[in-house]
Amino acid sequence: MTPTPEPAPDSYKRAAIIGGGVIGVSWAGLFLARGIDVVINDPRGDIEDLVRAGLEEITPALAELGLSTENLTAGLSFEADLAAAVAGADIVQENGPERLELKQRIWQTVEQNAPAHALLATSTSSIPATAIAKAMTRPERLIVGHPFNPPHLVPLVEIVPGEKTSEETVRQATAFYAALGKKPQVLRKEVPGFVANRLQSAIFRECVYLVAQGVVTEQELDDIVTSSIGLRWAVAGPFRTFHLGGGPGGLPHFIEHLGRAMEAGMWPVLGSPTFDDTTVATLIDQANAAFGDGTVEELAAERDRAQIALMRALGETPGSATSHG
Amino acid sequence: MTPTPEPAPDSYKRAAIIGGGVIGVSWAGLFLARGIDVVINDPRGDIEDLVRAGLEEITPALAELGLSTENLTAGLSFEADLAAAVAGADIVQENGPERLELKQRIWQTVEQNAPAHALLATSTSSIPATAIAKAMTRPERLIVGHPFNPPHLVPLVEIVPGEKTSEETVRQATAFYAALGKKPQVLRKEVPGFVANRLQSAIFRECVYLVAQGVVTEQELDDIVTSSIGLRWAVAGPFRTFHLGGGPGGLPHFIEHLGRAMEAGMWPVLGSPTFDDTTVATLIDQANAAFGDGTVEELAAERDRAQIALMRALGETPGSATSHG
Repeated sequence: MTPTPEPAPDSYKRAAIIGGGVIGVSWAGLFLARGIDVVINDPRGDIEDLVRAGLEEITPALAELGLSTENLTAGLSFEADLAAAVAGADIVQENGPERLELKQRIWQTVEQNAPAHALLATSTSSIPATAIAKAMTRPERLIVGHPFNPPHLVPLVEIVPGEKTSEETVRQATAFYAALGKKPQVLRKEVPGFVANRLQSAIFRECVYLVAQGVVTEQELDDIVTSSIGLRWAVAGPFRTFHLGGGPGGLPHFIEHLGRAMEAGMWPVLGSPTFDDTTVATLIDQANAAFGDGTVEELAAERDRAQIALMRALGETPGSATSHG
Repeated sequence: MTPTPEPAPDSYKRAAIIGGGVIGVSWAGLFLARGIDVVINDPRGDIEDLVRAGLEEITPALAELGLSTENLTAGLSFEADLAAAVAGADIVQENGPERLELKQRIWQTVEQNAPAHALLATSTSSIPATAIAKAMTRPERLIVGHPFNPPHLVPLVEIVPGEKTSEETVRQATAFYAALGKKPQVLRKEVPGFVANRLQSAIFRECVYLVAQGVVTEQELDDIVTSSIGLRWAVAGPFRTFHLGGGPGGLPHFIEHLGRAMEAGMWPVLGSPTFDDTTVATLIDQANAAFGDGTVEELAAERDRAQIALMRALGETPGSATSHG
């Protein structure tokens, strides 16, 4: 195990963000609002305009989250050369395309040019750190810091160490994201899709099936979720919910009775839909009917305002966490 | 189709609640707080003590929801004879054990003794109205009004017509539950488990798998859910979430790219756990570790307070809906 220095969160003064797409911009906004200077590395010629427009779009949400947005872009800069971009970084957050070879090339360059103390994190949602780090001299330094989109708004960051990631790197990543006001969660094993996206895939498979079967429309299904399990799971996850739903006997009682009934009666009848032409046509028609009353941007802004209201009600906005700035 | 009269919600003066368990008590509290007299029918000798204690337990939550709890039990009575209990009812809500024959016997008696205008609803989570109504002379009168537990707190009521349930009964049930401040959702087909419990089963299968595989503990999985998909789905359901996550192209774009990748890469690798001895031992050990810091009642009260805070933030407490009282 390499004794990587573990800087306190206060020591994060400068971030290199590789890839200035939606995820990169969201990270950039959060970092800047936390007083961390940000250098964006992205090969696109119009990247500066794109990033500045993106930051402007999320600034109201950052403010509503209780973060400082005054002179937000004072610490923002751009550097098209990757080696130069990471040279002074305390944290490198990579949000490149989901292609293994490309990420391997990026990280080879990063580890040769970033300072020895820098935290090295990839936002990948699908490529294990183990695979990327095979191309690195010091694989113990790389870790997955997978945000739930958009990173400035949703608290979760899944921290997924690769086979060779050091304990120090895990601790360093956990401390950094926590100091940002996020809720980091370290996974104990690398599995495809990590955890949140697997859960999302599992429920979405059944959602698609129920709509394809004509049991409910998309709008009706969404209304069912927001008025039942969604509301529940914002406050208590599935295990706690079933612990509390099992009567005084808690989860053990639940498993013996409802859990076994679920295994015998429900799991076997859950659907296995496919995105065939008929299903896709149904999904698109209903999406137009349900979500056609606004642009994606407008509807997203509306959703985000409601979500921030919930986070405030729960006292869980990042601004209510201890700041390191 | 029988021309069942459709009384306005104001005309619901008296409810018969069959079965005074957890669900029955919760319905009773909500009905009483809405100014509807309640007669409880339950064969147990100590039912009056049980129901009064149960009502006392949920009274703080009813008050926090903005409902009137003064003299809550003034309109409460008990009647062990089923025929007598339903004789003056405007709404009969049945919460008996989930046994088809027993429910058939109950509903034969109810339809012979309840007024012709009464709304006849069963809280069943697993038995289709079609099956129960086979024993009835007027099957068009019976409907499933399946609450998400506990009914006084969670907005959703799944309304599931049987094959012979009349349109009038569907309208009557929808209007009644909406006037109570609930969010009724009519299903277009009878499917096992209805919708919310199927979705819950689908995600829980993957939850059990991930814990059994040692990817996360129960507590860690719950934390992942509350800090990501739970928070999202309290505000926007899975379809809207993916519509907003697909960029300007919305759900159609999402399906073509991430949806097909999900079908090809994620759905096939989702887990199929079983409640074998090892898995059950793991689940119980972790439940004790995660939830051992309070009784189920204490933890449930804490969860319920947080949920009411969310509902307030969303303006969705029943007290903020138009009252019919």
